[in-house]
Amino acid sequence: MMDEHPGVAGFRFSGISAGIKASGDLDLALLAAEEESPAAAVFTANRVRAAPVEIARARIASGRAQAVLVNSGNANACTGREGERAAKRTTAAVADAIGAPRRLVLPASTGVIGRPLPAALIEAAVPALVARLAADGAGRFARAIMTTDRWPKMAAVEVDVGGARATVLGIAKGAGMIHPDLATTLAFVVTDASVGRGGLARALRGAVDETFNALTVDGETSTNDTIVAMASGRVGGRRIRRGSAAAVRFAGALRDVLGQLGRSIVRDGEGARTVVTLHVVGASSDRAARKVARRVAGSLLVKTAIHGRDPNWGRVLSAAGCAGVSFEPSESSLAIGDVTVMKRGTAVPGAEAAAAAVMVADEFPVELRIGRGPGSARYLFCDVGHDYVTVNADYRT
Amino acid sequence: MMDEHPGVAGFRFSGISAGIKASGDLDLALLAAEEESPAAAVFTANRVRAAPVEIARARIASGRAQAVLVNSGNANACTGREGERAAKRTTAAVADAIGAPRRLVLPASTGVIGRPLPAALIEAAVPALVARLAADGAGRFARAIMTTDRWPKMAAVEVDVGGARATVLGIAKGAGMIHPDLATTLAFVVTDASVGRGGLARALRGAVDETFNALTVDGETSTNDTIVAMASGRVGGRRIRRGSAAAVRFAGALRDVLGQLGRSIVRDGEGARTVVTLHVVGASSDRAARKVARRVAGSLLVKTAIHGRDPNWGRVLSAAGCAGVSFEPSESSLAIGDVTVMKRGTAVPGAEAAAAAVMVADEFPVELRIGRGPGSARYLFCDVGHDYVTVNADYRT
Repeated sequence: MMDEHPGVAGFRFSGISAGIKASGDLDLALLAAEEESPAAAVFTANRVRAAPVEIARARIASGRAQAVLVNSGNANACTGREGERAAKRTTAAVADAIGAPRRLVLPASTGVIGRPLPAALIEAAVPALVARLAADGAGRFARAIMTTDRWPKMAAVEVDVGGARATVLGIAKGAGMIHPDLATTLAFVVTDASVGRGGLARALRGAVDETFNALTVDGETSTNDTIVAMASGRVGGRRIRRGSAAAVRFAGALRDVLGQLGRSIVRDGEGARTVVTLHVVGASSDRAARKVARRVAGSLLVKTAIHGRDPNWGRVLSAAGCAGVSFEPSESSLAIGDVTVMKRGTAVPGAEAAAAAVMVADEFPVELRIGRGPGSARYLFCDVGHDYVTVNADYRT
Repeated sequence: MMDEHPGVAGFRFSGISAGIKASGDLDLALLAAEEESPAAAVFTANRVRAAPVEIARARIASGRAQAVLVNSGNANACTGREGERAAKRTTAAVADAIGAPRRLVLPASTGVIGRPLPAALIEAAVPALVARLAADGAGRFARAIMTTDRWPKMAAVEVDVGGARATVLGIAKGAGMIHPDLATTLAFVVTDASVGRGGLARALRGAVDETFNALTVDGETSTNDTIVAMASGRVGGRRIRRGSAAAVRFAGALRDVLGQLGRSIVRDGEGARTVVTLHVVGASSDRAARKVARRVAGSLLVKTAIHGRDPNWGRVLSAAGCAGVSFEPSESSLAIGDVTVMKRGTAVPGAEAAAAAVMVADEFPVELRIGRGPGSARYLFCDVGHDYVTVNADYRT
């Protein structure tokens, strides 16, 4: 993960402390395009949606946006009509300050649920926030959207699109409450590629499905999860056409950026010390494999075994058995790194010591075979240890 | 929870140390009826079923049983054909020793998955196990089936059935890996009521649904979960007829016994210090209410908030939002004990301090209203704290 980035043509970034967090840390961020731009977004699948999610969803239906105002320290979720008014007031202040139509400024919030958003504090901070906008301000933006994150999360990829060299820059926050269901966490992607709203939306949905929708920290889906992508087109050249080689390369770049951000989020799972890449193979379909992967990656017993560096393959198989997918344990096998610890549903004698040695690493793969079918899935997850409990039992105190 | 019980006419119990547990604690238990009796059982919904579950399922299809052989310290799960042979050999040794047909002895195991069951050790211990059978041996039986349990779990209720006074005695083990899906944990119920296999099966299924299927410790469903009920009929009197007042009373007694055992299991959740009785009300149907209750009770963020005695109702509402049930947050309210902390989807100002005071108790109710519908559900769950991580990260070391 990079700490700073020179930026992407057509965008400026800002991050300041508005006093939302009692700590005085950065807590207000702004991403602004020079002009109205094609934009796409995916949002949380939670039925309880924060006010900023409702407003951003309605506004981005146009496929256009110019700026995103993000605060940390307060989710503005479960705050009723007052919360909606707060999101509208604060984004209106930004729109007026940068000279953009109000409908083109999207709100996003992250933090504690159910406390009123201090809208007056944010409005008062908008002039300073806008004054601080800079092409190379992505690092400050990234720090200002952090909550329990141990580090800011940025990733960038360059990609050749129709003769021009475009940049895709992504910025995300997330550590706990990370689990799929459409979007998860907050993430913002900007590019100078010349791509329309449809192309951007297709590339974003595909990339999210393969990255943010295939990872879990603790099985939670927040009220605020939002991923927004915007394209300035400033790199010039022909607009990326649907189905073209450039479209494929652009989608790949977007997937790489979200993949790097997702990996950083799992690594930063609250209290996590180990990242596991789980491969489920041999399922009857990809869908079945994904169901099994999701169940195993979400199992508290598996997560604590990983934390204890215990190659307890029985817990993995037992979790897989609860996924609602039919399979024969006698056709199953499990490898931790390159050590096969279970074959045909039973232990491989003497393999556990070697597997335990693999598990000392920060990151290792686990492959679970559940039959001979063609279906497979990949899933990223982390261990759950004492620090998770500490972080989440004492979050608000 | 009682520690000892004088027993139930027609049954004897035993518990010894066979050397399965390295600690030398009791690890082999036997429950034997004087003769072949009506019996019923429910088993785990996990697709990965331990050898003893497969064998007990097949044997109890007859609706008859005479004894149950239970070991702790080894689940005999994911042990392949060797595991099946081990379960058959050990139950055959018991059948021969008590003079019962082999098909009437059910096996049940709990403990580590994937390690070969030490069948020779168990066979060698069978004479001592049978010699120790006693009418008042339920307490030893209860201790011999414990794994990570902090205390043995027994409950008994007396019930008037057709002029005769019958006893329903239940014994269970369970602390971690407790989550619904048909049966969960190991539990054994004996009664001297005169009830047939059909009546016993109906009463058991109803009781399990309202008790063991409505509680969770950590969202896991084991490979070994088994609940067996047997009736000696020794109390005499008329056989309980379907739909009679006696049948209703008997079902109620069975439910009370399993309810007490279930409560003790949740209280003993690995590392738990708080038991929450969650009521979800106002749902469109009981089914919808149960889905919401299950999601909230299973949420790691909710469980850690309970551990931290933090009235973080936002996490409860957010978890409810992920249950796949449609509801309006604006019609929702949440009470912790008798303190309403959230109304119409937003905070009740100043209520959190009073709610936090409620949460210091060992046990308290939480009521979540999600609308104005007639559906409701009740669910028991516990907090997750550091001890859960300690117990489960280091379980096998």
